[in-house]
Amino acid sequence: MLSTTARTRLGRAKHKARTDRSDLYDLLDAALVCHLGVVADGTPMVVPTCYGRIGDTLYLHGSTGARSLRAGGEACLTVTLLDGIVLARSAFHHSVNHRSAMVYGVLRTVTDEQERLAGLRALTEHLAPGRWDAVRPPGPKERAATRVLALALDEASVKVRTGPPVDDEEDLALPVWAGVLPVHRVFGAPETAPDLAFDLPVPDHVAQRAYPA
Amino acid sequence: MLSTTARTRLGRAKHKARTDRSDLYDLLDAALVCHLGVVADGTPMVVPTCYGRIGDTLYLHGSTGARSLRAGGEACLTVTLLDGIVLARSAFHHSVNHRSAMVYGVLRTVTDEQERLAGLRALTEHLAPGRWDAVRPPGPKERAATRVLALALDEASVKVRTGPPVDDEEDLALPVWAGVLPVHRVFGAPETAPDLAFDLPVPDHVAQRAYPA
Repeated sequence: MLSTTARTRLGRAKHKARTDRSDLYDLLDAALVCHLGVVADGTPMVVPTCYGRIGDTLYLHGSTGARSLRAGGEACLTVTLLDGIVLARSAFHHSVNHRSAMVYGVLRTVTDEQERLAGLRALTEHLAPGRWDAVRPPGPKERAATRVLALALDEASVKVRTGPPVDDEEDLALPVWAGVLPVHRVFGAPETAPDLAFDLPVPDHVAQRAYPA
Repeated sequence: MLSTTARTRLGRAKHKARTDRSDLYDLLDAALVCHLGVVADGTPMVVPTCYGRIGDTLYLHGSTGARSLRAGGEACLTVTLLDGIVLARSAFHHSVNHRSAMVYGVLRTVTDEQERLAGLRALTEHLAPGRWDAVRPPGPKERAATRVLALALDEASVKVRTGPPVDDEEDLALPVWAGVLPVHRVFGAPETAPDLAFDLPVPDHVAQRAYPA
């Protein structure tokens, strides 16, 4: 279960709240990019970035020079998947089917080299499952240039909207088509790097994700 | 041209910066959802929401009761489109092809009823082009329950990564496939609302967006 705090209790649309921890994990595993919000010099800064998950910890990474990826302050990490455009009979009841999660917490700089490597592996595997063991692992200089941050999944809310439009009773008499236009994220045909020096086939871990033509 | 401020000057990866105002508009018009960052009670809050654009103003809307959609404070509105997963020979050089924009500013509550309606129309038309004139417009009660906010596109940065992986020279000798797995957003077949009282066809403004099967 996701425990509720003042920040994660939905103020409105309470019926859209999901409180199973598995809903949070499913969404985090399905999405590829998150939006990390931090406060820098008193103003909010929202940065898109990749992430990986190990159990109830999210890992982020970035250059040691990046402004946004500083540990210490409060952060809000939001993940959103758009699933459909909800087309109602009235402008007012238009909506989007979506899954979103907001995670609140303080970013922790990971210093233990074993945890840092595990975090980087989770990040790479999240972006490209099966990739880590197929590529050259990070060397000492690369690791020194990379900051790894962790965010505990302790304080989070999940919100989900599914299904058809919900119109006002009196609008059902309007001769207006209503329904949902689904939105999908799909992978296209892999594009081999032009500087590939060998006649290598696209590996299974990449090819099997491509959308069937 | 996008004028640069301390907040919008890219600290790193300067070659990814785009400074044409048209790049900002193209991205905002292509994406459907933004992530709005505000500071509430001292902590950042990142909320996914829809938007519409009229010229160099973005319009957002929400319930008058929503916590996140308050005017007055500094906001950072970020829009991201993921275009591909960049698969390098080394874990370190993995990346994502993407377009992202960060807009900084202070949210303004729109009070002029004509501008409010124009903003709501832009929001609906952004989500579903051609929809506004096909549906019942917002009535007085609905309008009273809706807050419309505006954000000027005065201070913004745009960042774009395209193309194949950029590997270290010495890694080109590794027998590892490298390339890009493209990511696309597509629309599925429209799903008619189960409570549609008439035998209406899917209108062109919806049908023409669906992905060819």
